[in-house]
Amino acid sequence: MSHRRSAFFISDRTGITAESLGHTLLTQFDTLDFKRDTVPFVDTVDKAKALAQRISDIAERDHLRPLVFTSIVNPEVREALRLNNVVLIDFFETFIGQLEAEIGQKASLSVGKAHGMVNEEKYDHRMEAVNFSLNHDDGVKLKDLDEADVILVGVSRSGKTPTCLYLALQYGIRAANYPLTPEDLGSPTLPKLLLPFKDKIFGLTIDPARLHNIRSERRPDSKYASMDNCRREVNEAESMFRHHGVTFISTTHKSIEEIASTIMHKAALGRKF
Amino acid sequence: MSHRRSAFFISDRTGITAESLGHTLLTQFDTLDFKRDTVPFVDTVDKAKALAQRISDIAERDHLRPLVFTSIVNPEVREALRLNNVVLIDFFETFIGQLEAEIGQKASLSVGKAHGMVNEEKYDHRMEAVNFSLNHDDGVKLKDLDEADVILVGVSRSGKTPTCLYLALQYGIRAANYPLTPEDLGSPTLPKLLLPFKDKIFGLTIDPARLHNIRSERRPDSKYASMDNCRREVNEAESMFRHHGVTFISTTHKSIEEIASTIMHKAALGRKF
Repeated sequence: MSHRRSAFFISDRTGITAESLGHTLLTQFDTLDFKRDTVPFVDTVDKAKALAQRISDIAERDHLRPLVFTSIVNPEVREALRLNNVVLIDFFETFIGQLEAEIGQKASLSVGKAHGMVNEEKYDHRMEAVNFSLNHDDGVKLKDLDEADVILVGVSRSGKTPTCLYLALQYGIRAANYPLTPEDLGSPTLPKLLLPFKDKIFGLTIDPARLHNIRSERRPDSKYASMDNCRREVNEAESMFRHHGVTFISTTHKSIEEIASTIMHKAALGRKF
Repeated sequence: MSHRRSAFFISDRTGITAESLGHTLLTQFDTLDFKRDTVPFVDTVDKAKALAQRISDIAERDHLRPLVFTSIVNPEVREALRLNNVVLIDFFETFIGQLEAEIGQKASLSVGKAHGMVNEEKYDHRMEAVNFSLNHDDGVKLKDLDEADVILVGVSRSGKTPTCLYLALQYGIRAANYPLTPEDLGSPTLPKLLLPFKDKIFGLTIDPARLHNIRSERRPDSKYASMDNCRREVNEAESMFRHHGVTFISTTHKSIEEIASTIMHKAALGRKF
């Protein structure tokens, strides 16, 4: 008999919402290992019935009730997933009645607007932000800095590039990326090019030992990757941030999501799409 | 009196989960315009109390009870947000009891694992995927195709680049990007370089009129952007996909999230971190 319980994240669209909250709840039982399955685009009764049969078979085989997290909007599709031998955690149905009562209006029951394409203008804005961060990743120009919503500054491999891309994709933010070179770090003041944009600058720093590991993957046994050099670069970058009162955070123990949402919060940036 | 109701998405970490489900629920009331505010990192009773005061003031000013969506794990922090004049929608507390009962184990009440950095190895894997898609965005080499989890093929501006980046960031997938050039499109068969990797190929297509608009933004009045050329390129690309039985989807009315999760689903790819 298997003791690895199945968990399903089922959605009528991308599955992002059901997965996100489902994972949050399951991480609370961190000694257990769940067999996770995300099933997006379950948007007809037929698809739901076929899936229900599959889950039912698993329940019987495992002698353990699968956990079924759903965010399905259509009541008939939802109903087809209501099985006796599963634990149904319904993120939509549980709350929508309370909201209808409070707002004094019925839910429109339209599907998939949360991660759907709202309109072309907003989509274009987001694409422009992605292109902005792609085109300006190497070699920063005055014009880029001028057009940026935020400018991430830090030593090489401190996490600027993935954070810029995430800010663009997730929030539609134009994030420019300024790598502090050894020449920049020789002086205690910010590079001249950055001075006019001090208010848009956000600093990233990183634990020197972690930086040493990351750089060693790319250029083993180089001066660039050496522990001494990493320690000095990080120290100099942090001094520079302090000297100018630039807000900075350490990326060492943070995921990209955490780095990005911290920047959104601390720099008081708003979602752009 | 204002009729624009405030909605707060409050989290002890990034706010991604609370925002995602909160938005899903609010899109059901699409004739209403909510004043939305995401507040991440509310992880102490003091922070929660200060926020509660701010929300309470807004409730009084608006004569409308704010909607407060939370996913806070710590019961004391949560308690500080329990106000009389708000509608509290608690994504964590609502479900955790049912799960504890079913699983037969208490929640660990540890915070922020869902979008936290689980371990360095997984983080590195995700970074490698991002670097993979960044380094191989222009000019595809045999080695890249060999190492890719999936190869997105489509005409210029069909949505390959942002989708590759999203797949890397969100799922840790190494997605290579093969742009079909006019030369490639002259022949009904897949480019030679791609043939050995037919099973990893996923096609992207797009409505010619939309493509015409996107390309016209970049190169107005060019042959590249002309409606005739866009129509021909799209037709030839789709014929090529059909000829080889390559699965393809249209990106025209889809968000990046939808394109990416459709690819994950149809190509049966699993999350890599």
